Amino acid sequence: MNPSSTPGLIMSERRGSIAVVTLSHPGKRNALTVAMWRELARLFAGFSLDAGLRAVVLRGADGHFAAGADITEFPRERADANSTYHFHQQIIAPALDAIGGCAVPVLAAIEGACVGGGLEIACECDLRIAAASAQFGAPIRHLGFPMAPRELRGVLAVAGRSVALELLLEGRTMNAATAAAKGLVTRVVADADLEADVMRSATDIAAGAALAARLNKQTLRRLAPPPRDFTEAELRAFYAAWAESPEHREGVQAFLERRPPKFV
Amino acid sequence: MNPSSTPGLIMSERRGSIAVVTLSHPGKRNALTVAMWRELARLFAGFSLDAGLRAVVLRGADGHFAAGADITEFPRERADANSTYHFHQQIIAPALDAIGGCAVPVLAAIEGACVGGGLEIACECDLRIAAASAQFGAPIRHLGFPMAPRELRGVLAVAGRSVALELLLEGRTMNAATAAAKGLVTRVVADADLEADVMRSATDIAAGAALAARLNKQTLRRLAPPPRDFTEAELRAFYAAWAESPEHREGVQAFLERRPPKFV
Amino acid sequence: MNPSSTPGLIMSERRGSIAVVTLSHPGKRNALTVAMWRELARLFAGFSLDAGLRAVVLRGADGHFAAGADITEFPRERADANSTYHFHQQIIAPALDAIGGCAVPVLAAIEGACVGGGLEIACECDLRIAAASAQFGAPIRHLGFPMAPRELRGVLAVAGRSVALELLLEGRTMNAATAAAKGLVTRVVADADLEADVMRSATDIAAGAALAARLNKQTLRRLAPPPRDFTEAELRAFYAAWAESPEHREGVQAFLERRPPKFV
Repeated sequence: MNPSSTPGLIMSERRGSIAVVTLSHPGKRNALTVAMWRELARLFAGFSLDAGLRAVVLRGADGHFAAGADITEFPRERADANSTYHFHQQIIAPALDAIGGCAVPVLAAIEGACVGGGLEIACECDLRIAAASAQFGAPIRHLGFPMAPRELRGVLAVAGRSVALELLLEGRTMNAATAAAKGLVTRVVADADLEADVMRSATDIAAGAALAARLNKQTLRRLAPPPRDFTEAELRAFYAAWAESPEHREGVQAFLERRPPKFV
Repeated sequence: MNPSSTPGLIMSERRGSIAVVTLSHPGKRNALTVAMWRELARLFAGFSLDAGLRAVVLRGADGHFAAGADITEFPRERADANSTYHFHQQIIAPALDAIGGCAVPVLAAIEGACVGGGLEIACECDLRIAAASAQFGAPIRHLGFPMAPRELRGVLAVAGRSVALELLLEGRTMNAATAAAKGLVTRVVADADLEADVMRSATDIAAGAALAARLNKQTLRRLAPPPRDFTEAELRAFYAAWAESPEHREGVQAFLERRPPKFV
Repeated sequence: MNPSSTPGLIMSERRGSIAVVTLSHPGKRNALTVAMWRELARLFAGFSLDAGLRAVVLRGADGHFAAGADITEFPRERADANSTYHFHQQIIAPALDAIGGCAVPVLAAIEGACVGGGLEIACECDLRIAAASAQFGAPIRHLGFPMAPRELRGVLAVAGRSVALELLLEGRTMNAATAAAKGLVTRVVADADLEADVMRSATDIAAGAALAARLNKQTLRRLAPPPRDFTEAELRAFYAAWAESPEHREGVQAFLERRPPKFV
């Protein structure tokens, strides 16, 4: 349980024409470090260039999908407006872009915690298959900061405006059945069946028409309204508005000290 | 029960950093008069300028949210195409703009009737928490008129195209469980728990990161596709198409005479 | 069961101010032939010009809505990239345009198979009322081809991105209850009640404010983000990418030979 002794990593394994990617950060519910975000971006960029690949399964190790970004890195990586801009725009956004833009079908196998950055990753996948005991949320209000535009764009595309507002403003987590009722997941299966269900779907997709799958993904991207990208100036203003605020400092500090935050 | 003896009003009360706004029109299920729409616009414009405010609760008095516009005012306020244009564009639209554009989280506490203009107001709020016995609908086809563009825009953003078509074309009301299944409400609670559930959420939001909440709302607005606003000429043509039609006259007349309309 | 002996047809019947259109292709679950797509386009274009019409009911004969396009026509009608372009852009797209653009409310009465082209037609309707035993899907991956842009646009508008991806990538069918939970249908009724429920709704709509219904449909179309239409060059490239591919040939060939496809 000593965080510094167990660095996180991304494991990737090829099973025939299927890649299985595992988020792993022991003792931290697979919280994502800068190194892990970078590795996700690198891996998924490679997947899109791999003509022999037909499906990707994205899962977490040890009973969790991912609990979000690793907050113990925040004091070093997100100390002021500039570094916070860099962290979200140059570390997280490229990883989400690579997953969301992956040329082949990506299936998220979700159990345990799927919150914050974990939820953001899941929302970039094509199918979200959840174990019954999975938990979903984006409780970053307790850390004193808002969701960054690129990150929120993916959550919004899956959850819709009402559910995105609910997740962010209330900051609660919801169970898999509620998440399914709200359209956040493709289906819910028994905990013990998760791996088999996801691999059955991936295997079936991989045995099917691969060109059709790639073209369906392309057409859906092309049909979507163009993303309302923020200008560089707007992004700078966004991060400047909160990165160095007392609220943000208190939220992160309280988390690191394992106490409830006090916002005033 | 004499409508003219009980004018409607909007009550606003401050509880710490939370504003509680109550729609009240005794004996008329809080039907909204011109004066009430104007007061809503005025109040919510003020809320957005109030740096100390952290959440708004919007509720109705006496067991209902709101039954829609007060139709007894229609003969005076909506007699022809010009006045109908004015009523919807200059009275209702600014109220919806102010609620939908409110800088802080707005929670709708919904019990009883949430129909027509009441549904339009609820759809501009961020969270819609409903009592189990609440009823939702937009049965204005029985009054012989279509939903105005600005009003429909908000309903569409929450309900989606299919449910908006269902509500308008069939003109039925649906109970809270059905509304929840269709994504119209955030959650459904027992009637007796509504006030406590809403105030618990508002209190929690108010105790949390206020800047993050404001920025999350801003980012979601910024990410949404730009509203497809109608030109002045299109709006004039829209109201001219039906305001003085026999269908509209019959619908309103029948309501005022408490008889079913006859459309031919 | 000899396909060539039972050509499909579209039957249209007027009941007062309601048109009842029936997809019929005996022994083929109402699979749509080129002649049927053309007749749908012609009929619905006429409906939009018919001032006396107040509602359209679209149903299938013999216990099914429609199973999709009639694949036995594919070798003749979709032999190469040019004819495939023609088939989807000049035969199917105009039919979907006419249904989706119909001036009056269109109610789909759905029982049995509602898959592929059948699902595409249903998604262009305003209300989708389903019998409990109806089945929904778009399993065209087993035929080795992707959904064409205009066809996918309508499915996307009803199903949303996540469900469209699920339907196309997994290629499974789902029952009516699941389809309803995912927002694909307006409501589910007992099989024996389908006709009565749909005709009750159509009769009620027809007896109501017809101008309001037309204007509500117009406003909803006007408010939607403009469709991201593909250029002619993009469409040509889309069809060229798969029409003559081994995958597509194998998918169609396997279907015609009543064997599972082998994609390599």
